Amino acid sequence: MNSFGQTPIVMGTGVYIPRDRIENDDLVASFNEYVAVENKRREKTGEPLLEGSNSGFILEASGVRARHVLEKTGILDPARMVPHLPDRRDEALSIQAEFGVASARLAIADAGLEPVEIDLVICSCAHHQRPYPAIGIEIQKALGCAGGAFDMNVACSSTTFAMHLAAQMVRSGAARNVLVCSPEIMSGHLNFRDRKTHFIFGDASASVVIGGRREKPGSPAFEIVHSDIWTDFSSNIRSNFGFLNRTIPPAANNDDKLVTQVGNKVFKEVVQAANRVVRAFLEKAGVGVDQIERFWLHQANIKMIRTLMRMLASEEMTERVPITLAEIGNVAAPGSIIAFDKTKREVPVGGYGLICSFGAGYSIGCLLLKRVA
Amino acid sequence: MNSFGQTPIVMGTGVYIPRDRIENDDLVASFNEYVAVENKRREKTGEPLLEGSNSGFILEASGVRARHVLEKTGILDPARMVPHLPDRRDEALSIQAEFGVASARLAIADAGLEPVEIDLVICSCAHHQRPYPAIGIEIQKALGCAGGAFDMNVACSSTTFAMHLAAQMVRSGAARNVLVCSPEIMSGHLNFRDRKTHFIFGDASASVVIGGRREKPGSPAFEIVHSDIWTDFSSNIRSNFGFLNRTIPPAANNDDKLVTQVGNKVFKEVVQAANRVVRAFLEKAGVGVDQIERFWLHQANIKMIRTLMRMLASEEMTERVPITLAEIGNVAAPGSIIAFDKTKREVPVGGYGLICSFGAGYSIGCLLLKRVA
Repeated sequence: MNSFGQTPIVMGTGVYIPRDRIENDDLVASFNEYVAVENKRREKTGEPLLEGSNSGFILEASGVRARHVLEKTGILDPARMVPHLPDRRDEALSIQAEFGVASARLAIADAGLEPVEIDLVICSCAHHQRPYPAIGIEIQKALGCAGGAFDMNVACSSTTFAMHLAAQMVRSGAARNVLVCSPEIMSGHLNFRDRKTHFIFGDASASVVIGGRREKPGSPAFEIVHSDIWTDFSSNIRSNFGFLNRTIPPAANNDDKLVTQVGNKVFKEVVQAANRVVRAFLEKAGVGVDQIERFWLHQANIKMIRTLMRMLASEEMTERVPITLAEIGNVAAPGSIIAFDKTKREVPVGGYGLICSFGAGYSIGCLLLKRVA
Repeated sequence: MNSFGQTPIVMGTGVYIPRDRIENDDLVASFNEYVAVENKRREKTGEPLLEGSNSGFILEASGVRARHVLEKTGILDPARMVPHLPDRRDEALSIQAEFGVASARLAIADAGLEPVEIDLVICSCAHHQRPYPAIGIEIQKALGCAGGAFDMNVACSSTTFAMHLAAQMVRSGAARNVLVCSPEIMSGHLNFRDRKTHFIFGDASASVVIGGRREKPGSPAFEIVHSDIWTDFSSNIRSNFGFLNRTIPPAANNDDKLVTQVGNKVFKEVVQAANRVVRAFLEKAGVGVDQIERFWLHQANIKMIRTLMRMLASEEMTERVPITLAEIGNVAAPGSIIAFDKTKREVPVGGYGLICSFGAGYSIGCLLLKRVA
């Protein structure tokens, strides 16, 4: 059984960026208004005062000029700072499935397939709206895909890890065409009152179709020459939000359960790990750093990307390293795939490209691609 | 690359059941005390009164006599009805990782391996304590496993779906030995004030090692002859608990976000789907229902299992259908694996067994096993 396996090919990609856009100046105005009100309160209680922010600091710290989100008025309201994402009836398509479907349709069309030709849907991202039924199954149903579906999570490496799995499913013959769908709603999990993290992230949905054939003339196809995953536990990027919070005193069940990170440690440890893992990965694949036409890296932070490229290739930023974070922020799992989607046509047939994610876990996922059509 | 694939073998299993045990009588006493107090309040407000429960009803409805949980005093306290699972510092092993490690160590020993020989850890269950870092990565670190790890979720089929993936990873050569770990903490997600669901579930941790070799003399090994997954969206078993709840009015962010099910619809629809999917699965594998020595079925409910076996094999319950739910309840994802772990030695070498999960999603996972040692 399961013996009709083929060489896995990235057949199509799709990206959907929500329309609501928040520039640094808008974010800072809202944040500083919150700080002013909060500090008035704190002056009375004697608590330490909060520091305001500014657009220069944000750009310098992250390289981010703007981010897109599903709903911005709730975020920019200094009295709220949480998006308005109204509850939907169980009978309605959930907001995360809807967001996933938006990029999935583009990816399936880009692959030249009909939804029913997809026989595995993996909804892989850092935040899932609910535990069950799986968001992946809802997306499968909404699209009309066949086979099975499930959800998976390994933070910013969710998309690359799912692509690695998808490649093995195609290779073993367990699936013909796999949809990896990453509808990442960072804005729902972000503490917009936290000066250190509120500016980093944005919402985005990206999808990839991996199968054994090249279907659509005119759409670039990439063979997955080699892929691998690596993890090493760290709490330096962590969210403690979850179902067990109801078992502890309610006072603790609050915004401290959202994403936190120890930025300087993450920077140092993740860049070093990524340099080591990518070098070993390329050596195993027998391809040199200089043979890579494009590095589609996790769009964490411009400084991390710059430092990694210096360590890896002793080079300054060039067209080899596409950057999308300036206009949409760090969108967690879909980041490297959006960079790939935007620039995949720049790689000539026969040329190599590397997709590499790195982030919470720690987790690093690598895929060596070779353009075949 | 990735071309050293082998035939996947279930090399080892491990089960850890927590010591705290709640008999039906204890659960009913606590529940009825809650109902008495609540009804006193409702008499004043004119709200409709709640119905009490009894052990006979529970046993008749589910076949469950007792369930084990991580912490019972909080659950049985009528003023609380939520387990006490105190928060831990980020530096400490989290409660879910600890629970997973307890069964994982047994499975790795049963497989005759050292932890470092595991190169992929999948933490797959219906409830994960937090989004990141992945619980699987924490388990990987605590055990000293190599390679990578991630979390996945497809409710009661989480373990079988992960085994299907693990089989493909071994088949394709992407992994040598995979640990599938399912530490399921149902009690943290259960509304113990809900008469319809409070008695169904229990906590359990089960792990499986899938690799390409048969290592340990004396430990049964099973070749995965065929495996497949099936899903079809339904909200009839649903939990709306999740990170987006903070974007809607707080009043709605409550116990209505825990597991709910439309029992009669689930019963009918899931049993019919399981009958259809299992028949097609066995036909594809070329093995008849009468050739299956053991049916290791999801331990949802004794009536569902009985009805499915009547439809599938026109037979009453026999030793072919091991039952574990009477003493530990429905433990979600690990259910069928615990039945397998308890009775795998009863299958002669050369004999077939079927692992089948069915549940929320809807999701059905099937693995046809053949004992090879």
